[in-house]
Amino acid sequence: MITHLPLCSIPNPKKVLVIGGGDGGVLREVSRHSSIEKIDICEIDKMVVDVSKQFFPKVAVGYDDPRVTLHIGDGVAFLKAVPEGTYDAVIVDSSDPIGPAQELFEKPFFQSVAKALRPGGVVCTQAESIWLHMHIIEDIVVNCRQVFKGSVNYAWTSVPTYPSGVIGFMLCSTEGPAVDFKHPVNPIDADYSHVSKNGPLRFYNSEIHSAAFCLPSFAKKVIESKAN
Amino acid sequence: MITHLPLCSIPNPKKVLVIGGGDGGVLREVSRHSSIEKIDICEIDKMVVDVSKQFFPKVAVGYDDPRVTLHIGDGVAFLKAVPEGTYDAVIVDSSDPIGPAQELFEKPFFQSVAKALRPGGVVCTQAESIWLHMHIIEDIVVNCRQVFKGSVNYAWTSVPTYPSGVIGFMLCSTEGPAVDFKHPVNPIDADYSHVSKNGPLRFYNSEIHSAAFCLPSFAKKVIESKAN
Repeated sequence: MITHLPLCSIPNPKKVLVIGGGDGGVLREVSRHSSIEKIDICEIDKMVVDVSKQFFPKVAVGYDDPRVTLHIGDGVAFLKAVPEGTYDAVIVDSSDPIGPAQELFEKPFFQSVAKALRPGGVVCTQAESIWLHMHIIEDIVVNCRQVFKGSVNYAWTSVPTYPSGVIGFMLCSTEGPAVDFKHPVNPIDADYSHVSKNGPLRFYNSEIHSAAFCLPSFAKKVIESKAN
Repeated sequence: MITHLPLCSIPNPKKVLVIGGGDGGVLREVSRHSSIEKIDICEIDKMVVDVSKQFFPKVAVGYDDPRVTLHIGDGVAFLKAVPEGTYDAVIVDSSDPIGPAQELFEKPFFQSVAKALRPGGVVCTQAESIWLHMHIIEDIVVNCRQVFKGSVNYAWTSVPTYPSGVIGFMLCSTEGPAVDFKHPVNPIDADYSHVSKNGPLRFYNSEIHSAAFCLPSFAKKVIESKAN
């Protein structure tokens, strides 16, 4: 979901940056999009990559794609050196905003992301659980609304192994061609690109994409008041 | 969700039967629908009712509605004595299909439910987790497809305290006026009936209703092949 929500929301994504996601799972999913030409990944912890390659080969298989370039380092520093307007999409597959990942939820980081994106480019960041972290989510939405001049949205999905069984995402676009995240324009289930050597998609489809933006009333009230 | 999914899918529900649901939570939610005239509940275990009234007054408040009649007994037996075509909706708020609740997932029970419903009446039954119980769900869908001559659908929602963080529902209708469960005709959030003395609805709304029917590809494949 963290991959297909942004990449299915824009036509023909070509250049993608992944921040975090060292296990390779996001890379594997980005690979399914045939329009992609270049995939950069910046992971701070090389051991995550090594351990995933050793013990989770079906996830780390993402590194086998020749379009991938791995950068080991701090995503915040990496982004600062990226030329303006480089990427169509940035995917932030981070841990929780405590300790090393805290900066990835703050306004200066979002400003670097916005600068690295082309006009009408999109970002998808891990954005916690509506059951557990509404106060954090509220802050993230406020930060994103200030930084991203296009559309600012919250989506969520079921992950049985995560605390409270769900995880959320912020989906934002920069000023430029409008992006309607709720109605995917690049349906990965409409062609056969989703049947890769890693098998067909088992979870994501266009209906699940749109449904992810439907929020319970308690969350909708808080998020929409800050996002609009 | 187990209450509003069926009751928002038909216009002006008047007579409702709840099987199980002894804690009173479903009753509380049925009460929000101003068209309702009669609410029968058949709970097998009186102690569930007593304990809920003692320790969970905000849930058991459902019993305060004068439209409610409580029957202590076996839901299977109760249904057999119900005159044909009595109810607009039956809600089966059961435990898992192991032990006492097992019968509530079997074909003879669904046949009694269908008989108790008016033409174009609806049933909503607790239907397990797509992450844990696809084999059980497959059987339930097959049974329902054989019994209910209208529409047969699976919906799911997030419940952080349940195993795997989700719960599912079978939504079926009997032969008669067509019911399109995915597009609610009786939007409880369009008027003020949802602001009862128990406060406004905090989770359910029409968008969440429709989104509940969007399934991940792995579940959609199994369920749609059996339901259509």
